[in-house]
Amino acid sequence: MARITLDEFRKIMETSLPIGLMLGAEPILIEERRAVFRLPFREDSLRPGGSIAGPMLMGLADVVIYAAILGTVEGALQAVTSNLTMNFLRRVPPGPIIAEGRLLRVGRRLAFGEVELFAEGDPEMVAHATLTYALPAPAT
Amino acid sequence: MARITLDEFRKIMETSLPIGLMLGAEPILIEERRAVFRLPFREDSLRPGGSIAGPMLMGLADVVIYAAILGTVEGALQAVTSNLTMNFLRRVPPGPIIAEGRLLRVGRRLAFGEVELFAEGDPEMVAHATLTYALPAPAT
Amino acid sequence: MARITLDEFRKIMETSLPIGLMLGAEPILIEERRAVFRLPFREDSLRPGGSIAGPMLMGLADVVIYAAILGTVEGALQAVTSNLTMNFLRRVPPGPIIAEGRLLRVGRRLAFGEVELFAEGDPEMVAHATLTYALPAPAT
Amino acid sequence: MARITLDEFRKIMETSLPIGLMLGAEPILIEERRAVFRLPFREDSLRPGGSIAGPMLMGLADVVIYAAILGTVEGALQAVTSNLTMNFLRRVPPGPIIAEGRLLRVGRRLAFGEVELFAEGDPEMVAHATLTYALPAPAT
Repeated sequence: MARITLDEFRKIMETSLPIGLMLGAEPILIEERRAVFRLPFREDSLRPGGSIAGPMLMGLADVVIYAAILGTVEGALQAVTSNLTMNFLRRVPPGPIIAEGRLLRVGRRLAFGEVELFAEGDPEMVAHATLTYALPAPAT
Repeated sequence: MARITLDEFRKIMETSLPIGLMLGAEPILIEERRAVFRLPFREDSLRPGGSIAGPMLMGLADVVIYAAILGTVEGALQAVTSNLTMNFLRRVPPGPIIAEGRLLRVGRRLAFGEVELFAEGDPEMVAHATLTYALPAPAT
Repeated sequence: MARITLDEFRKIMETSLPIGLMLGAEPILIEERRAVFRLPFREDSLRPGGSIAGPMLMGLADVVIYAAILGTVEGALQAVTSNLTMNFLRRVPPGPIIAEGRLLRVGRRLAFGEVELFAEGDPEMVAHATLTYALPAPAT
Repeated sequence: MARITLDEFRKIMETSLPIGLMLGAEPILIEERRAVFRLPFREDSLRPGGSIAGPMLMGLADVVIYAAILGTVEGALQAVTSNLTMNFLRRVPPGPIIAEGRLLRVGRRLAFGEVELFAEGDPEMVAHATLTYALPAPAT
Protein backbone atom coordinates (compact mmCIF):
# COMPACT_ATOMS: atom_id res chain seq x y z
CA MET A 1 0.00 0.00 0.00
CA ALA A 2 1.45 3.34 -1.07
CA ARG A 3 1.43 6.12 1.51
CA ILE A 4 0.45 8.63 -1.16
CA THR A 5 -1.93 8.61 -4.13
CA LEU A 6 -1.25 9.91 -7.63
CA ASP A 7 -3.62 12.80 -6.92
CA GLU A 8 -1.86 13.69 -3.69
CA PHE A 9 1.49 13.72 -5.49
CA ARG A 10 0.09 15.91 -8.28
CA LYS A 11 -1.13 18.30 -5.59
CA ILE A 12 2.36 18.42 -4.04
CA MET A 13 3.83 19.27 -7.45
CA GLU A 14 1.29 22.07 -7.85
CA THR A 15 1.78 23.60 -4.45
CA SER A 16 5.43 23.06 -3.64
CA LEU A 17 7.39 21.34 -6.42
CA PRO A 18 7.09 23.67 -9.41
CA ILE A 19 10.11 22.01 -11.02
CA GLY A 20 7.93 18.93 -11.49
CA LEU A 21 5.38 21.04 -13.36
CA MET A 22 8.11 22.81 -15.31
CA LEU A 23 9.33 19.44 -16.56
CA GLY A 24 5.77 18.30 -17.17
CA ALA A 25 6.36 15.00 -15.35
CA GLU A 26 3.20 12.91 -14.95
CA PRO A 27 2.94 10.22 -12.25
CA ILE A 28 1.63 6.93 -13.68
CA LEU A 29 2.11 4.72 -10.66
CA ILE A 30 3.27 5.24 -7.07
CA GLU A 31 3.62 2.18 -4.88
CA GLU A 32 5.62 1.24 -1.85
CA ARG A 33 9.26 1.35 -3.02
CA ARG A 34 8.30 1.98 -6.64
CA ALA A 35 7.13 4.75 -8.98
CA VAL A 36 6.67 5.21 -12.72
CA PHE A 37 6.40 8.57 -14.47
CA ARG A 38 5.80 9.71 -18.03
CA LEU A 39 7.34 12.80 -19.54
CA PRO A 40 5.30 13.99 -22.54
CA PHE A 41 7.29 15.39 -25.42
CA ARG A 42 7.79 19.14 -25.65
CA GLU A 43 9.63 21.00 -28.38
CA ASP A 44 11.60 22.98 -25.82
CA SER A 45 13.15 19.86 -24.31
CA LEU A 46 15.41 19.33 -27.31
CA ARG A 47 19.15 20.03 -27.45
CA PRO A 48 21.53 20.58 -30.36
CA GLY A 49 21.26 17.51 -32.56
CA GLY A 50 17.54 17.13 -31.94
CA SER A 51 17.65 14.71 -29.00
CA ILE A 52 16.08 15.24 -25.57
CA ALA A 53 18.28 17.36 -23.29
CA GLY A 54 19.97 15.56 -20.41
CA PRO A 55 18.64 17.85 -17.67
CA MET A 56 15.06 16.83 -18.54
CA LEU A 57 15.98 13.23 -17.75
CA MET A 58 17.92 14.14 -14.61
CA GLY A 59 14.97 16.10 -13.27
CA LEU A 60 12.61 13.29 -14.16
CA ALA A 61 14.75 10.67 -12.38
CA ASP A 62 14.92 12.87 -9.30
CA VAL A 63 11.15 13.31 -9.15
CA VAL A 64 10.50 9.59 -9.66
CA ILE A 65 12.60 8.55 -6.66
CA TYR A 66 11.11 11.35 -4.57
CA ALA A 67 7.65 9.97 -5.36
CA ALA A 68 8.75 6.41 -4.52
CA ILE A 69 10.02 7.67 -1.16
CA LEU A 70 6.76 9.51 -0.42
CA GLY A 71 4.98 6.27 -1.31
CA THR A 72 7.07 4.38 1.23
CA VAL A 73 8.05 6.60 4.15
CA GLU A 74 5.54 8.51 6.29
CA GLY A 75 6.14 12.27 6.46
CA ALA A 76 9.14 12.36 4.11
CA LEU A 77 8.21 15.56 2.28
CA GLN A 78 11.52 17.06 3.42
CA ALA A 79 13.61 14.23 1.97
CA VAL A 80 16.41 15.73 -0.15
CA THR A 81 18.67 14.32 -2.83
CA SER A 82 22.20 13.78 -1.60
CA ASN A 83 23.65 11.96 -4.63
CA LEU A 84 22.53 11.43 -8.21
CA THR A 85 24.58 9.47 -10.72
CA MET A 86 23.18 9.34 -14.21
CA ASN A 87 24.45 7.47 -17.23
CA PHE A 88 23.18 8.33 -20.69
CA LEU A 89 23.26 5.23 -22.84
CA ARG A 90 21.78 6.38 -26.16
CA ARG A 91 20.66 9.54 -27.85
CA VAL A 92 17.05 10.07 -26.87
CA PRO A 93 14.80 10.71 -29.87
CA PRO A 94 12.03 13.33 -29.68
CA GLY A 95 9.01 11.75 -27.99
CA PRO A 96 7.64 10.83 -24.56
CA ILE A 97 9.90 9.27 -21.92
CA ILE A 98 8.97 6.57 -19.40
CA ALA A 99 10.91 6.49 -16.12
CA GLU A 100 10.64 3.49 -13.81
CA GLY A 101 12.11 3.88 -10.34
CA ARG A 102 12.50 1.50 -7.46
CA LEU A 103 14.02 1.76 -4.01
CA LEU A 104 16.74 -0.79 -3.30
CA ARG A 105 17.29 0.27 0.28
CA VAL A 106 15.26 2.31 2.74
CA GLY A 107 17.23 2.94 5.91
CA ARG A 108 16.59 5.20 8.84
CA ARG A 109 18.61 8.10 7.45
CA LEU A 110 19.09 7.32 3.76
CA ALA A 111 17.09 5.83 0.90
CA PHE A 112 18.76 4.51 -2.25
CA GLY A 113 17.03 3.84 -5.54
CA GLU A 114 17.59 3.32 -9.22
CA VAL A 115 15.69 4.61 -12.25
CA GLU A 116 15.54 3.14 -15.74
CA LEU A 117 14.50 5.47 -18.55
CA PHE A 118 13.04 4.51 -21.90
CA ALA A 119 11.75 6.19 -25.01
CA GLU A 120 8.06 5.24 -24.87
CA GLY A 121 7.40 2.05 -26.81
CA ASP A 122 11.06 1.06 -27.14
CA PRO A 123 12.48 -1.59 -24.77
CA GLU A 124 16.09 -0.38 -25.05
CA MET A 125 17.09 1.64 -22.01
CA VAL A 126 18.16 5.19 -22.91
CA ALA A 127 19.47 6.25 -19.50
CA HIS A 128 20.04 4.88 -16.01
CA ALA A 129 20.25 6.71 -12.71
CA THR A 130 20.99 5.88 -9.09
CA LEU A 131 20.00 8.28 -6.34
CA THR A 132 20.54 8.61 -2.61
CA TYR A 133 18.09 10.70 -0.62
CA ALA A 134 18.64 11.90 2.94
CA LEU A 135 15.46 11.25 4.91
CA PRO A 136 14.16 13.75 7.45
CA ALA A 137 14.42 12.79 11.12
CA PRO A 138 11.10 11.26 12.18
CA ALA A 139 8.77 13.59 14.06
CA THR A 140 8.59 12.77 17.77
CA MET B 1 41.58 31.93 -26.02
CA ALA B 2 38.05 30.58 -25.86
CA ARG B 3 36.57 29.21 -29.07
CA ILE B 4 33.22 30.79 -28.29
CA THR B 5 32.12 34.14 -26.83
CA LEU B 6 29.47 34.71 -24.19
CA ASP B 7 27.22 36.19 -26.88
CA GLU B 8 27.69 33.21 -29.15
CA PHE B 9 26.76 30.87 -26.31
CA ARG B 10 23.68 32.93 -25.47
CA LYS B 11 22.67 32.67 -29.12
CA ILE B 12 23.06 28.85 -28.99
CA MET B 13 20.81 28.74 -25.93
CA GLU B 14 18.21 30.83 -27.74
CA THR B 15 18.21 28.84 -30.94
CA SER B 16 18.89 25.26 -29.89
CA LEU B 17 19.20 24.82 -26.12
CA PRO B 18 15.87 25.96 -24.69
CA ILE B 19 16.57 24.07 -21.46
CA GLY B 20 19.27 26.65 -20.76
CA LEU B 21 16.70 29.42 -21.11
CA MET B 22 14.15 27.46 -19.09
CA LEU B 23 16.66 27.30 -16.22
CA GLY B 24 17.58 30.94 -16.75
CA ALA B 25 21.31 30.14 -16.71
CA GLU B 26 23.53 33.13 -17.53
CA PRO B 27 27.08 32.68 -18.79
CA ILE B 28 29.54 34.88 -16.86
CA LEU B 29 32.79 33.55 -18.28
CA ILE B 30 33.75 31.01 -20.94
CA GLU B 31 37.42 30.24 -21.39
CA GLU B 32 39.45 27.36 -22.68
CA ARG B 33 38.71 24.51 -20.25
CA ARG B 34 36.66 26.72 -17.93
CA ALA B 35 33.22 28.31 -17.58
CA VAL B 36 31.29 30.14 -14.90
CA PHE B 37 27.51 30.61 -14.89
CA ARG B 38 25.04 32.41 -12.65
CA LEU B 39 21.55 31.17 -12.00
CA PRO B 40 19.31 34.05 -10.85
CA PHE B 41 16.75 33.19 -8.21
CA ARG B 42 13.24 32.33 -9.30
CA GLU B 43 10.33 31.47 -7.02
CA ASP B 44 9.51 28.41 -9.09
CA SER B 45 12.91 26.82 -8.46
CA LEU B 46 12.04 26.00 -4.85
CA ARG B 47 11.20 22.57 -3.47
CA PRO B 48 9.37 21.48 -0.31
CA GLY B 49 11.27 23.02 2.60
CA GLY B 50 12.03 26.20 0.68
CA SER B 51 15.45 25.28 -0.72
CA ILE B 52 16.45 25.27 -4.39
CA ALA B 53 15.36 22.09 -6.18
CA GLY B 54 18.13 19.66 -7.14
CA PRO B 55 17.23 19.49 -10.84
CA MET B 56 17.95 23.22 -11.22
CA LEU B 57 21.52 22.56 -10.07
CA MET B 58 21.90 19.43 -12.20
CA GLY B 59 20.80 21.31 -15.29
CA LEU B 60 23.09 24.21 -14.43
CA ALA B 61 26.12 21.91 -13.97
CA ASP B 62 25.38 20.25 -17.29
CA VAL B 63 25.21 23.57 -19.15
CA VAL B 64 28.42 24.86 -17.53
CA ILE B 65 30.50 21.92 -18.72
CA TYR B 66 28.88 22.06 -22.16
CA ALA B 67 29.98 25.72 -22.40
CA ALA B 68 33.50 24.87 -21.24
CA ILE B 69 33.70 22.22 -23.97
CA LEU B 70 32.47 24.65 -26.63
CA GLY B 71 35.12 27.07 -25.36
CA THR B 72 37.80 24.42 -25.83
CA VAL B 73 36.94 22.08 -28.70
CA GLU B 74 36.21 23.26 -32.23
CA GLY B 75 32.84 22.15 -33.61
CA ALA B 76 31.65 20.33 -30.50
CA LEU B 77 28.03 21.45 -30.62
CA GLN B 78 26.99 17.78 -30.79
CA ALA B 79 28.88 16.82 -27.63
CA VAL B 80 26.52 14.90 -25.33
CA THR B 81 26.58 14.08 -21.63
CA SER B 82 27.43 10.47 -20.97
CA ASN B 83 27.76 10.59 -17.17
CA LEU B 84 26.81 13.08 -14.49
CA THR B 85 27.46 12.49 -10.80
CA MET B 86 26.20 15.14 -8.45
CA ASN B 87 26.60 15.42 -4.71
CA PHE B 88 24.45 17.83 -2.75
CA LEU B 89 26.38 19.05 0.27
CA ARG B 90 24.03 21.55 1.93
CA ARG B 91 20.49 22.80 1.62
CA VAL B 92 20.58 25.62 -0.89
CA PRO B 93 18.84 28.76 0.39
CA PRO B 94 16.65 30.84 -1.95
CA GLY B 95 18.93 33.14 -3.96
CA PRO B 96 21.23 33.14 -6.97
CA ILE B 97 23.65 30.27 -7.60
CA ILE B 98 27.18 30.49 -8.99
CA ALA B 99 28.52 27.44 -10.84
CA GLU B 100 32.22 27.18 -11.68
CA GLY B 101 33.22 24.43 -14.07
CA ARG B 102 36.59 23.28 -15.34
CA LEU B 103 37.70 20.50 -17.64
CA LEU B 104 40.20 18.11 -16.09
CA ARG B 105 40.70 16.04 -19.22
CA VAL B 106 39.95 16.65 -22.88
CA GLY B 107 40.62 13.53 -24.91
CA ARG B 108 39.81 12.64 -28.47
CA ARG B 109 36.51 10.96 -27.65
CA LEU B 110 35.67 12.08 -24.12
CA ALA B 111 35.91 15.22 -22.01
CA PHE B 112 35.73 15.12 -18.21
CA GLY B 113 35.06 18.08 -15.95
CA GLU B 114 33.98 19.10 -12.50
CA VAL B 115 31.61 21.81 -11.29
CA GLU B 116 31.53 23.52 -7.92
CA LEU B 117 28.29 25.26 -6.96
CA PHE B 118 27.84 28.05 -4.44
CA ALA B 119 25.09 30.23 -3.09
CA GLU B 120 26.17 33.65 -4.35
CA GLY B 121 28.30 35.45 -1.78
CA ASP B 122 28.89 32.37 0.40
CA PRO B 123 32.22 30.52 0.08
CA GLU B 124 30.85 27.19 1.33
CA MET B 125 30.24 24.80 -1.55
CA VAL B 126 26.60 23.68 -1.75
CA ALA B 127 26.99 21.02 -4.43
CA HIS B 128 29.65 19.31 -6.52
CA ALA B 129 29.34 17.57 -9.86
CA THR B 130 31.56 15.59 -12.20
CA LEU B 131 30.56 15.08 -15.82
CA THR B 132 31.79 13.08 -18.78
CA TYR B 133 30.82 14.24 -22.26
CA ALA B 134 31.18 12.20 -25.43
CA LEU B 135 32.72 14.40 -28.11
CA PRO B 136 31.57 14.24 -31.72
CA ALA B 137 33.95 12.71 -34.25
CA PRO B 138 35.93 15.53 -35.89
CA ALA B 139 34.70 16.58 -39.32
CA THR B 140 37.01 15.41 -42.11
CA MET C 1 26.56 -18.25 -25.87
CA ALA C 2 29.41 -16.68 -23.90
CA ARG C 3 32.58 -15.84 -25.80
CA ILE C 4 34.68 -17.05 -22.90
CA THR C 5 34.48 -20.00 -20.49
CA LEU C 6 35.00 -19.91 -16.73
CA ASP C 7 38.30 -21.72 -17.22
CA GLU C 8 39.47 -19.23 -19.81
CA PHE C 9 38.65 -16.37 -17.48
CA ARG C 10 40.49 -18.05 -14.59
CA LYS C 11 43.50 -18.38 -16.89
CA ILE C 12 43.34 -14.66 -17.72
CA MET C 13 43.32 -13.84 -14.01
CA GLU C 14 46.36 -16.06 -13.49
CA THR C 15 48.39 -14.68 -16.36
CA SER C 16 47.45 -11.04 -16.58
CA LEU C 17 44.97 -9.93 -13.91
CA PRO C 18 46.72 -10.58 -10.59
CA ILE C 19 44.34 -8.17 -8.84
CA GLY C 20 41.61 -10.75 -9.43
CA LEU C 21 43.70 -13.37 -7.67
CA MET C 22 44.66 -10.92 -4.93
CA LEU C 23 40.95 -10.39 -4.22
CA GLY C 24 40.31 -14.12 -4.51
CA ALA C 25 37.34 -13.57 -6.84
CA GLU C 26 35.87 -16.78 -8.26
CA PRO C 27 33.81 -16.78 -11.47
CA ILE C 28 30.56 -18.73 -11.03
CA LEU C 29 28.89 -17.89 -14.31
CA ILE C 30 29.86 -15.94 -17.42
CA GLU C 31 27.23 -15.50 -20.12
CA GLU C 32 26.57 -13.03 -22.85
CA ARG C 33 25.88 -9.75 -21.04
CA ARG C 34 26.01 -11.36 -17.60
CA ALA C 35 28.45 -12.66 -14.99
CA VAL C 36 28.28 -13.85 -11.38
CA PHE C 37 31.25 -14.07 -9.05
CA ARG C 38 31.78 -15.29 -5.50
CA LEU C 39 34.28 -13.75 -3.12
CA PRO C 40 35.21 -16.20 -0.36
CA PHE C 41 35.73 -14.72 3.06
CA ARG C 42 39.26 -13.85 4.18
CA GLU C 43 40.26 -12.41 7.53
CA ASP C 44 42.34 -9.74 5.84
CA SER C 45 39.36 -8.29 4.00
CA LEU C 46 37.93 -6.76 7.20
CA ARG C 47 38.01 -3.10 8.14
CA PRO C 48 37.65 -1.34 11.50
CA GLY C 49 34.31 -2.40 12.93
CA GLY C 50 34.66 -5.94 11.58
CA SER C 51 32.81 -5.50 8.26
CA ILE C 52 34.19 -6.24 4.79
CA ALA C 53 36.32 -3.37 3.46
CA GLY C 54 34.84 -1.33 0.62
CA PRO C 55 37.77 -1.78 -1.77
CA MET C 56 37.19 -5.56 -1.81
CA LEU C 57 33.70 -4.92 -3.15
CA MET C 58 34.84 -2.27 -5.62
CA GLY C 59 37.44 -4.61 -7.05
CA LEU C 60 34.93 -7.43 -7.21
CA ALA C 61 32.38 -5.29 -9.08
CA ASP C 62 35.04 -4.21 -11.54
CA VAL C 63 36.10 -7.79 -12.28
CA VAL C 64 32.49 -8.96 -12.70
CA ILE C 65 31.71 -6.42 -15.41
CA TYR C 66 35.04 -7.10 -17.10
CA ALA C 67 34.08 -10.78 -17.27
CA ALA C 68 30.62 -9.95 -18.62
CA ILE C 69 32.26 -7.88 -21.36
CA LEU C 70 34.68 -10.67 -22.27
CA GLY C 71 31.65 -12.96 -22.42
CA THR C 72 29.95 -10.62 -24.88
CA VAL C 73 32.48 -8.80 -27.04
CA GLU C 74 35.12 -10.54 -29.14
CA GLY C 75 38.69 -9.50 -28.41
CA ALA C 76 37.90 -7.08 -25.60
CA LEU C 77 40.81 -7.98 -23.32
CA GLN C 78 41.97 -4.35 -23.50
CA ALA C 79 38.63 -2.95 -22.33
CA VAL C 80 39.26 -0.51 -19.47
CA THR C 81 37.03 0.96 -16.77
CA SER C 82 36.19 4.58 -17.43
CA ASN C 83 33.66 5.14 -14.62
CA LEU C 84 32.66 3.25 -11.50
CA THR C 85 29.98 4.45 -9.13
CA MET C 86 29.43 2.36 -6.06
CA ASN C 87 26.87 2.74 -3.32
CA PHE C 88 27.27 0.88 -0.05
CA LEU C 89 23.86 0.12 1.38
CA ARG C 90 24.58 -1.87 4.54
CA ARG C 91 27.53 -2.94 6.62
CA VAL C 92 28.77 -6.19 5.13
CA PRO C 93 29.21 -8.93 7.74
CA PRO C 94 32.22 -11.27 7.60
CA GLY C 95 31.46 -14.02 5.09
CA PRO C 96 31.41 -14.73 1.36
CA ILE C 97 30.03 -12.17 -1.10
CA ILE C 98 28.02 -12.85 -4.25
CA ALA C 99 28.22 -10.28 -7.06
CA GLU C 100 25.78 -10.39 -9.96
CA GLY C 101 26.57 -8.20 -12.93
CA ARG C 102 24.73 -7.50 -16.15
CA LEU C 103 25.37 -5.27 -19.12
CA LEU C 104 22.60 -2.79 -19.84
CA ARG C 105 24.19 -1.38 -22.96
CA VAL C 106 26.94 -2.58 -25.27
CA GLY C 107 27.82 0.08 -27.80
CA ARG C 108 30.64 0.34 -30.28
CA ARG C 109 32.89 2.33 -27.96
CA LEU C 110 31.38 1.93 -24.50
CA ALA C 111 29.73 -0.78 -22.43
CA PHE C 112 27.62 0.02 -19.36
CA GLY C 113 26.63 -2.42 -16.66
CA GLU C 114 25.38 -2.72 -13.13
CA VAL C 115 26.37 -5.04 -10.30
CA GLU C 116 24.33 -6.09 -7.29
CA LEU C 117 26.25 -7.42 -4.30
CA PHE C 118 24.92 -9.66 -1.54
CA ALA C 119 26.20 -11.38 1.56
CA GLU C 120 25.86 -15.03 0.53
CA GLY C 121 22.51 -16.44 1.62
CA ASP C 122 20.94 -13.07 2.41
CA PRO C 123 18.57 -11.53 -0.17
CA GLU C 124 19.13 -7.93 1.02
CA MET C 125 21.50 -6.08 -1.30
CA VAL C 126 24.60 -4.81 0.51
CA ALA C 127 26.05 -2.72 -2.30
CA HIS C 128 25.26 -1.58 -5.83
CA ALA C 129 27.61 -0.47 -8.59
CA THR C 130 27.35 0.92 -12.10
CA LEU C 131 30.34 0.82 -14.42
CA THR C 132 31.25 2.15 -17.84
CA TYR C 133 34.02 0.44 -19.76
CA ALA C 134 35.76 1.85 -22.83
CA LEU C 135 35.98 -0.89 -25.44
CA PRO C 136 39.08 -1.32 -27.59
CA ALA C 137 38.77 -0.40 -31.27
CA PRO C 138 37.98 -3.58 -33.24
CA ALA C 139 40.96 -5.18 -34.96
CA THR C 140 40.91 -4.65 -38.72
CA MET D 1 46.33 20.37 13.43
CA ALA D 2 45.58 16.82 12.33
CA ARG D 3 43.88 14.55 14.85
CA ILE D 4 46.10 11.66 13.81
CA THR D 5 49.77 11.28 12.91
CA LEU D 6 51.23 9.32 10.01
CA ASP D 7 52.53 6.78 12.49
CA GLU D 8 49.15 6.39 14.13
CA PHE D 9 47.55 5.83 10.75
CA ARG D 10 50.18 3.24 9.81
CA LYS D 11 49.41 1.47 13.07
CA ILE D 12 45.69 1.42 12.21
CA MET D 13 46.47 -0.13 8.84
CA GLU D 14 48.57 -2.79 10.53
CA THR D 15 46.07 -3.69 13.21
CA SER D 16 42.70 -3.24 11.56
CA LEU D 17 42.90 -2.19 7.91
CA PRO D 18 44.78 -5.01 6.15
CA ILE D 19 43.42 -3.85 2.79
CA GLY D 20 45.63 -0.78 3.17
CA LEU D 21 48.66 -3.03 3.60
CA MET D 22 47.52 -5.30 0.78
CA LEU D 23 47.49 -2.29 -1.53
CA GLY D 24 50.79 -1.09 -0.10
CA ALA D 25 49.45 2.46 0.37
CA GLU D 26 51.86 4.78 2.20
CA PRO D 27 50.63 7.91 3.96
CA ILE D 28 52.73 10.96 3.02
CA LEU D 29 50.68 13.66 4.69
CA ILE D 30 47.58 13.74 6.88
CA GLU D 31 46.17 17.12 7.83
CA GLU D 32 42.83 18.48 8.84
CA ARG D 33 40.62 17.94 5.77
CA ARG D 34 43.50 16.69 3.63
CA ALA D 35 45.66 13.62 3.01
CA VAL D 36 48.23 12.51 0.45
CA PHE D 37 49.27 8.92 -0.15
CA ARG D 38 51.82 7.19 -2.36
CA LEU D 39 51.29 3.79 -3.89
CA PRO D 40 54.64 2.20 -4.81
CA PHE D 41 54.66 0.18 -7.99
CA ARG D 42 54.20 -3.58 -7.78
CA GLU D 43 54.22 -6.01 -10.68
CA ASP D 44 50.99 -7.60 -9.48
CA SER D 45 49.04 -4.36 -9.79
CA LEU D 46 49.04 -4.53 -13.58
CA ARG D 47 46.11 -5.45 -15.79
CA PRO D 48 45.91 -6.68 -19.38
CA GLY D 49 47.62 -4.07 -21.52
CA GLY D 50 50.25 -3.37 -18.87
CA SER D 51 48.57 -0.46 -17.09
CA ILE D 52 47.74 -0.24 -13.38
CA ALA D 53 44.49 -2.04 -12.53
CA GLY D 54 41.53 0.15 -11.61
CA PRO D 55 40.82 -1.52 -8.26
CA MET D 56 44.26 -0.46 -6.98
CA LEU D 57 43.27 3.16 -7.58
CA MET D 58 39.79 2.72 -6.12
CA GLY D 59 41.23 1.22 -2.96
CA LEU D 60 43.83 3.97 -2.75
CA ALA D 61 41.21 6.73 -3.11
CA ASP D 62 39.10 5.12 -0.42
CA VAL D 63 42.02 4.95 2.04
CA VAL D 64 43.06 8.56 1.35
CA ILE D 65 39.67 9.98 2.25
CA TYR D 66 39.43 7.70 5.28
CA ALA D 67 42.76 9.14 6.49
CA ALA D 68 41.59 12.72 5.83
CA ILE D 69 38.50 12.02 7.93
CA LEU D 70 40.55 10.55 10.79
CA GLY D 71 42.72 13.68 10.54
CA THR D 72 39.64 15.87 10.95
CA VAL D 73 36.97 14.17 13.04
CA GLU D 74 37.57 12.84 16.56
CA GLY D 75 36.77 9.16 17.03
CA ALA D 76 35.77 8.43 13.43
CA LEU D 77 37.41 5.02 13.14
CA GLN D 78 33.99 3.56 12.32
CA ALA D 79 33.34 5.95 9.43
CA VAL D 80 32.28 3.91 6.38
CA THR D 81 32.16 4.67 2.68
CA SER D 82 28.62 5.20 1.43
CA ASN D 83 29.39 6.33 -2.13
CA LEU D 84 32.45 6.26 -4.36
CA THR D 85 32.46 7.61 -7.90
CA MET D 86 35.65 7.18 -9.82
CA ASN D 87 36.54 8.39 -13.29
CA PHE D 88 39.57 7.00 -15.06
CA LEU D 89 40.99 9.64 -17.36
CA ARG D 90 44.08 8.00 -18.86
CA ARG D 91 45.80 4.66 -18.95
CA VAL D 92 48.07 4.54 -15.92
CA PRO D 93 51.62 3.49 -16.79
CA PRO D 94 53.56 1.12 -14.53
CA GLY D 95 55.07 3.18 -11.69
CA PRO D 96 54.16 4.79 -8.38
CA ILE D 97 50.88 6.66 -7.93
CA ILE D 98 50.28 9.81 -5.90
CA ALA D 99 46.77 10.38 -4.53
CA GLU D 100 45.78 13.75 -3.10
CA GLY D 101 42.52 13.91 -1.20
CA ARG D 102 40.65 16.77 0.40
CA LEU D 103 37.36 17.04 2.23
CA LEU D 104 34.92 19.51 0.70
CA ARG D 105 32.27 19.10 3.37
CA VAL D 106 32.31 17.67 6.87
CA GLY D 107 28.81 17.53 8.28
CA ARG D 108 27.41 15.89 11.36
CA ARG D 109 26.47 12.66 9.61
CA LEU D 110 28.33 12.72 6.29
CA ALA D 111 31.71 13.77 4.98
CA PHE D 112 32.35 14.38 1.28
CA GLY D 113 35.73 14.55 -0.39
CA GLU D 114 37.51 14.35 -3.69
CA VAL D 115 40.75 12.64 -4.70
CA GLU D 116 43.04 13.46 -7.60
CA LEU D 117 45.40 10.71 -8.74
CA PHE D 118 48.64 11.14 -10.66
CA ALA D 119 51.43 9.00 -12.00
CA GLU D 120 54.35 10.19 -9.86
CA GLY D 121 56.23 13.00 -11.58
CA ASP D 122 53.56 13.68 -14.20
CA PRO D 123 51.19 16.62 -13.67
CA GLU D 124 48.39 15.17 -15.84
CA MET D 125 45.64 13.68 -13.69
CA VAL D 126 45.10 9.97 -14.39
CA ALA D 127 41.96 9.47 -12.31
CA HIS D 128 39.50 11.43 -10.18
CA ALA D 129 37.25 10.23 -7.39
CA THR D 130 34.56 11.64 -5.16
CA LEU D 131 33.55 9.85 -1.97
CA THR D 132 30.89 10.18 0.68
CA TYR D 133 31.52 8.66 4.08
CA ALA D 134 28.90 8.09 6.76
CA LEU D 135 30.29 9.29 10.08
CA PRO D 136 29.66 7.38 13.30
CA ALA D 137 27.33 8.97 15.83
CA PRO D 138 29.43 10.89 18.38
CA ALA D 139 30.03 9.06 21.66
CA THR D 140 27.99 10.55 24.53
